[in-house]
Amino acid sequence: MRGPVKIVATVGPSSASASILAQMLSLGVDVARINTSHGSVDQWSSMLESLRRAEEAVGKRVGVAVDLEGPRVRTSNSALVKLEKGDLVTLGYMEGDIPVDSKQFFEALDEGDIVLLDDGKIALQVESVEGFQVKARVIEGGVLGPRKGVVVRGKEPDLPPLTARDRSALEFFADKGVSHVYVSFARSAEHVEKVRSIIRRLGLRHARVFAKIEGPSGVRRIGEIAEASDGVIIARGDLGMHYSLEELPEIQELIVMEARRRHKTVVLATEFLSSMIEKPVPTRSEVVDIYQAVLQTADALMLTGETAVGRYPVKSVQWMAKISSRAYRKLAASPPEKPRPTSTPYKLALGLVELAESLDAPLVVYSKTGRFAERLASFRPLKTFYVGVPSREVERVVRHLWGAEPVVVGDHPYEAGLARTYEKLRSENIIHGDETVVEAAWSSERGIYIIRVRNLEF
Amino acid sequence: MRGPVKIVATVGPSSASASILAQMLSLGVDVARINTSHGSVDQWSSMLESLRRAEEAVGKRVGVAVDLEGPRVRTSNSALVKLEKGDLVTLGYMEGDIPVDSKQFFEALDEGDIVLLDDGKIALQVESVEGFQVKARVIEGGVLGPRKGVVVRGKEPDLPPLTARDRSALEFFADKGVSHVYVSFARSAEHVEKVRSIIRRLGLRHARVFAKIEGPSGVRRIGEIAEASDGVIIARGDLGMHYSLEELPEIQELIVMEARRRHKTVVLATEFLSSMIEKPVPTRSEVVDIYQAVLQTADALMLTGETAVGRYPVKSVQWMAKISSRAYRKLAASPPEKPRPTSTPYKLALGLVELAESLDAPLVVYSKTGRFAERLASFRPLKTFYVGVPSREVERVVRHLWGAEPVVVGDHPYEAGLARTYEKLRSENIIHGDETVVEAAWSSERGIYIIRVRNLEF
Amino acid sequence: MRGPVKIVATVGPSSASASILAQMLSLGVDVARINTSHGSVDQWSSMLESLRRAEEAVGKRVGVAVDLEGPRVRTSNSALVKLEKGDLVTLGYMEGDIPVDSKQFFEALDEGDIVLLDDGKIALQVESVEGFQVKARVIEGGVLGPRKGVVVRGKEPDLPPLTARDRSALEFFADKGVSHVYVSFARSAEHVEKVRSIIRRLGLRHARVFAKIEGPSGVRRIGEIAEASDGVIIARGDLGMHYSLEELPEIQELIVMEARRRHKTVVLATEFLSSMIEKPVPTRSEVVDIYQAVLQTADALMLTGETAVGRYPVKSVQWMAKISSRAYRKLAASPPEKPRPTSTPYKLALGLVELAESLDAPLVVYSKTGRFAERLASFRPLKTFYVGVPSREVERVVRHLWGAEPVVVGDHPYEAGLARTYEKLRSENIIHGDETVVEAAWSSERGIYIIRVRNLEF
Amino acid sequence: MRGPVKIVATVGPSSASASILAQMLSLGVDVARINTSHGSVDQWSSMLESLRRAEEAVGKRVGVAVDLEGPRVRTSNSALVKLEKGDLVTLGYMEGDIPVDSKQFFEALDEGDIVLLDDGKIALQVESVEGFQVKARVIEGGVLGPRKGVVVRGKEPDLPPLTARDRSALEFFADKGVSHVYVSFARSAEHVEKVRSIIRRLGLRHARVFAKIEGPSGVRRIGEIAEASDGVIIARGDLGMHYSLEELPEIQELIVMEARRRHKTVVLATEFLSSMIEKPVPTRSEVVDIYQAVLQTADALMLTGETAVGRYPVKSVQWMAKISSRAYRKLAASPPEKPRPTSTPYKLALGLVELAESLDAPLVVYSKTGRFAERLASFRPLKTFYVGVPSREVERVVRHLWGAEPVVVGDHPYEAGLARTYEKLRSENIIHGDETVVEAAWSSERGIYIIRVRNLEF
Repeated sequence: MRGPVKIVATVGPSSASASILAQMLSLGVDVARINTSHGSVDQWSSMLESLRRAEEAVGKRVGVAVDLEGPRVRTSNSALVKLEKGDLVTLGYMEGDIPVDSKQFFEALDEGDIVLLDDGKIALQVESVEGFQVKARVIEGGVLGPRKGVVVRGKEPDLPPLTARDRSALEFFADKGVSHVYVSFARSAEHVEKVRSIIRRLGLRHARVFAKIEGPSGVRRIGEIAEASDGVIIARGDLGMHYSLEELPEIQELIVMEARRRHKTVVLATEFLSSMIEKPVPTRSEVVDIYQAVLQTADALMLTGETAVGRYPVKSVQWMAKISSRAYRKLAASPPEKPRPTSTPYKLALGLVELAESLDAPLVVYSKTGRFAERLASFRPLKTFYVGVPSREVERVVRHLWGAEPVVVGDHPYEAGLARTYEKLRSENIIHGDETVVEAAWSSERGIYIIRVRNLEF
Repeated sequence: MRGPVKIVATVGPSSASASILAQMLSLGVDVARINTSHGSVDQWSSMLESLRRAEEAVGKRVGVAVDLEGPRVRTSNSALVKLEKGDLVTLGYMEGDIPVDSKQFFEALDEGDIVLLDDGKIALQVESVEGFQVKARVIEGGVLGPRKGVVVRGKEPDLPPLTARDRSALEFFADKGVSHVYVSFARSAEHVEKVRSIIRRLGLRHARVFAKIEGPSGVRRIGEIAEASDGVIIARGDLGMHYSLEELPEIQELIVMEARRRHKTVVLATEFLSSMIEKPVPTRSEVVDIYQAVLQTADALMLTGETAVGRYPVKSVQWMAKISSRAYRKLAASPPEKPRPTSTPYKLALGLVELAESLDAPLVVYSKTGRFAERLASFRPLKTFYVGVPSREVERVVRHLWGAEPVVVGDHPYEAGLARTYEKLRSENIIHGDETVVEAAWSSERGIYIIRVRNLEF
Repeated sequence: MRGPVKIVATVGPSSASASILAQMLSLGVDVARINTSHGSVDQWSSMLESLRRAEEAVGKRVGVAVDLEGPRVRTSNSALVKLEKGDLVTLGYMEGDIPVDSKQFFEALDEGDIVLLDDGKIALQVESVEGFQVKARVIEGGVLGPRKGVVVRGKEPDLPPLTARDRSALEFFADKGVSHVYVSFARSAEHVEKVRSIIRRLGLRHARVFAKIEGPSGVRRIGEIAEASDGVIIARGDLGMHYSLEELPEIQELIVMEARRRHKTVVLATEFLSSMIEKPVPTRSEVVDIYQAVLQTADALMLTGETAVGRYPVKSVQWMAKISSRAYRKLAASPPEKPRPTSTPYKLALGLVELAESLDAPLVVYSKTGRFAERLASFRPLKTFYVGVPSREVERVVRHLWGAEPVVVGDHPYEAGLARTYEKLRSENIIHGDETVVEAAWSSERGIYIIRVRNLEF
Repeated sequence: MRGPVKIVATVGPSSASASILAQMLSLGVDVARINTSHGSVDQWSSMLESLRRAEEAVGKRVGVAVDLEGPRVRTSNSALVKLEKGDLVTLGYMEGDIPVDSKQFFEALDEGDIVLLDDGKIALQVESVEGFQVKARVIEGGVLGPRKGVVVRGKEPDLPPLTARDRSALEFFADKGVSHVYVSFARSAEHVEKVRSIIRRLGLRHARVFAKIEGPSGVRRIGEIAEASDGVIIARGDLGMHYSLEELPEIQELIVMEARRRHKTVVLATEFLSSMIEKPVPTRSEVVDIYQAVLQTADALMLTGETAVGRYPVKSVQWMAKISSRAYRKLAASPPEKPRPTSTPYKLALGLVELAESLDAPLVVYSKTGRFAERLASFRPLKTFYVGVPSREVERVVRHLWGAEPVVVGDHPYEAGLARTYEKLRSENIIHGDETVVEAAWSSERGIYIIRVRNLEF
């Protein structure tokens, strides 16, 4: 059986076909991520189309996450540029050996800074800065493709939170059933709030906003950012360019802790199975990495290049499912202590989780917006819990959460919604008639919450 | 406020009047104990009568516990016997300097044995045994009153579990509303079962059977005895004659642990406030002793001589209530881990307690027999829980349990019983209309258990 | 075998004879306490004389502690005064129904105050105060003897730290081999320092100063007082007049913790075996109290009335030794965590204790002043450690410490002192030639400390 | 600063030059491993020669570990064999499409078995077995090079513990200063003992025997194997062919635990930085893997392909040092509990480690054979400890141990050896004259062990 940890898979060339996607979904993908840094409206349309067909084929709907490009500086070369160690090169605003697309980038630069290109594969050291004219020495060479990311180690140029591309991406996706928006390079609560207000304006009523922590500001302000977000994503890729890699495990632990104490969804991302881009089997390191991520109680783990451009998108999903499910068994054998909540909604959620765990019974609830499911998930229930939801929109939202299994039953008052949910689980034989089940819902009477334990035999 | 630890007070000459009893009840006595080793049917009648009047005066009904004499050997002298250290005296069956009322006693004796009289105040060492003729040297002297207990250190003569006196006591009490029978010198599960079958035959439907552990067999067989009983009483008085006193704290800890892991009621007894027999204020030692007993999570603490024959029965109750309530505050600040149950009824009870504690809300249930209240109490809920019961009989049973507050509402189906309980608590203003409350009961539908959280405001 | 917890016994009428004292010493008394509130110079002389003879008879020297009267208000009546509940009585400075010996007492009084006489046995409530004329109602009656203590609940009149009696007592004891001075009613670090400077001036070079915490100021300033003292005494008698008795266990725990984190000696006092003033056997409560005091890791427990005026001084010592030794076995089975020191001398002491415990070997050291022994004791070593000392003076000091066994070997450089200590332990067969022993001493070379593990067989 | 975790690097084509080796040594390699599955006597000679030169250049000597080929079945093809998924192929003893070099292999085979070639890159499923004629279907294709390993999943053919190649390798290395022999495919205590007796016969007096756990027998008999060995190596490569990869983290944890409770050296091996065979920077997974291995308190981590055939042998060492040192900081902040030893030599070692840690001082010892250093290392001291040794042979042995820094000072009685060690550390300014140091050695006097704390200032 699958454990409660969810899998986010990035859709890309390797996984753009409905048949590949269908395999991935059936093997465990819970959320499909579209990275708007790449591709065009046509390509995104076609991805969504494939995804719809895959969902139909498999009979399962997944979360759809749009990952914005965000305030990233990029090179604006259109041809390949060869850079050899020791070369002295020029960087300029839209000109020079390495043309760069942002003026703010040049304002942030100082002599001695390390500039990393293409996810850190190429490194330069700045020797002089004169306005938008920079000379830099190549300290790690390579061939630079077009539109590659540019990072100044430890610095973040003061760019607006969303690019024009981001805005048109959001407009495009506004009516496409998106359930999650990932805010790249989240730097402050204000940054997250801004994206949230835009997507609300665009009519994405339920879409959750997750902040990607990928630079020093994100780490420093993790508290306020987590507070302002529905979830946080630990983007180990960019973090690894600002910090020395050996610092990442501690940063990862810190972010998980800060998010969990605020009851927010936690996603871990980047290079979980990077060797599988080329090979059908993971390395021992990758197994340990995924295993530890589950022990740290992340809600979800993300595959990026593995499924977007790798040779083995399906096998990558399969391995991630196998490893995380094994790690879950270990976790369940000595479950971590649950956080002690201070507000009533979380106290109720904790109480329900403890009641269900004490009875070793699955929990069934009905959640109109998915918020209650988020609260339940935040206590990491050891058993799958079933969440009746009014619509596909909310279904996709809930699919992202630790241990949650959504069921669409239409919009009803709470008690009726719960009854429909139970019926559906019964009719689909997900719940058999004879095991103990804990159901919970608001009563029609004001201020009363009802919990029903079914099939309780003494 | 009173903590959840219950107080058992022995009724005796000092507390035989209704007015004294009324004060004791209002200050915190939850169970009145009648020790049938002493007194006559007339005296017991009059105690019950006083108790009824006291209950009416105070508007509170308490548990009524009959403590059987049990298989205790006694002297059969009618006059005082003076014994001086060094004297050589004779013991015989109903004859000699110290006449003894049991033939089995003589069979158990060997040369060198230590014989303790009158709770250990007088000690003899056996020098020779010839049939029912024993010569012994006084090693601790004193004046021996009539009908005093006789103990051979480390040995238990093979007496029948109940004396004739016990049987007639049980017959007398059979229709007097007794809620608990304390089985003295409990030596085995069989012993307890025997008493249970007798009291069932006498029609005491609900009366609980508690085993008093007061000798080596009881300690050795604590597992089976706890299993066979509804509760255990750690009778430190007699235990202290069989074991050296410094061993008692470990024995006490062991018995508490064995009983709690079987979810049985635990009562600690003897010499909690013995200085208060003479003085109005406890010693520092006594304060520490009561404090520790609460930290050990006993359900109830028993007063014996303090209220039966002491000069300050009312003050004794008052001090025990004050000290145990203070110790409870300490316990509540770092609550002990709850035992993990294996059977469904206990899992449900634990789940309810955890739900209520997570919501910091009182729990309200309806229990036809008190069994469910026993299960809830076994997890030591931190808040008082309210138990609707059909009758005074069950009310008295429930009164003995950690944290339980019984309410008589008549015999009803579960849901109706719960509704009446809630109404009554509301009408008596024990529960106000605005605080969160967790209610739980069996539904009329088969196999369904319903929990209702009232006044839940988000 | 005796455990490491030391016993302080108060010398008084019941224990003034050399033969009684000899029995007490041989059964486990480590420190003899003389309470200078009572008795005269002649009586103290005779006590010391008896003690010397007892020591010789037993071949063991003990600590001699002088417990000062301190700033206690007393009544100055010479005859008995009978007080009945409800009486209205007058208190005045050296006059009235109840004459009182202190003007400051009257300044502290307010209407409504509770005045406790004779250790709280008699209680009055103040109805009016006019200068040194006070009217009060008896709320707890009794017969008032001469020179009884007077306490105003929760208040401490502003008296000088030492009385004239204290000063003459100190002068008398200055050349009598006193090892400890107990400062009664210690209220501040300054208070303790004052006594320390006086006893230094009197030539008591080694005598340790222990602060008795017996009132609200002592509790409030426990940090600074512990810092200024060599040890603290938790005087539960007077504390119980200022605080409600049920608060004492928490106060006791607090003081132990504050003293231990400063590595100070901790003594617990009052009413450990108060029933044994009259009876030969302790109550169950008293057993639990002593047991818990050991589990709290007090260095020493004090007997007061039990040995001073009780009927069973020798048996009291015997029981305290038996119970504390049993409790020690429990403690040793799951030893408490050791405090982590921050200064080098304590780090060395901890390292030695851990080395010896790892090897399960006794530790042997030579300590010129006893300070090093105090450091070792502060980590509560599980095995007896042997401390060679230069003089009887230091021997008496060391005798008071947890686990320490002093041996007088004369004044030598450290290494020689250690060698003599080892020889003596060998010649007295305390250490046999074949068990592993850890020895430690300063080397003659500057800055080098030497540890020797003897009889280490692989 | 380097942490205490040691780095084993495999010497191979990428690291065969003295200059590369010199860089690797200076960046943190503690043990050079020569894998005798590959190469010839000439190549091994040349590796040793390069290593000697590198050691001289850097001024540091490292452990030299010979990793035996062990009982591994191999293909005996000399040309490449192309295998496509779905092909039906024949395997035969030294013949067929895939010739195999072992008759026992065929005896172990059954229909349905999975045969893995070349570290699992190619997989076949057996369809029929007739003597030494096997037909199998290719289920994972690839190009098979010559002399590749053959594994039957979950089975181990009954091969002799050492191959002819192993014996000649041992003979070759017998006089080359080898410090460690790694026993591949260790299956039982007997297996390890056999290798140990051979290497003793060959005159390798000090060489330690480490068992490589790489198959089901090794895991099943981990207890007896660890007991018989000086250390264990968790060879995640082959283990991953017998077990599903997701089981490896639990197996790794089990083996570490079993070895540590027997105080044996623990080495973790395989794929720590496999991406660095091609790329200059590790993946996030690899960082987490190394980090976790240190938190699991392995003594040493092994690099294989990374330094043997990778493009970045030096950078691999550098990254491993950086990551493990960071992880060590985390470990030191909340140090794991030390195992409690039962025999005297280990108790002494633990006592010394605790003494030194309490004083926060480095430990200096003199160890003739390295055994004492192994004991100290088994308690994972938080600070580097210095070990004087008589010879280069022992130096190389000690270099492999957690936290140990060996110093060659010649063969002396213990006290003199320790003195020389201290002098040398002083003269090389590794220890300055002013910090606290704990020295320990056997005294010349029988049964006496001496510990000296230097520069102890109070």
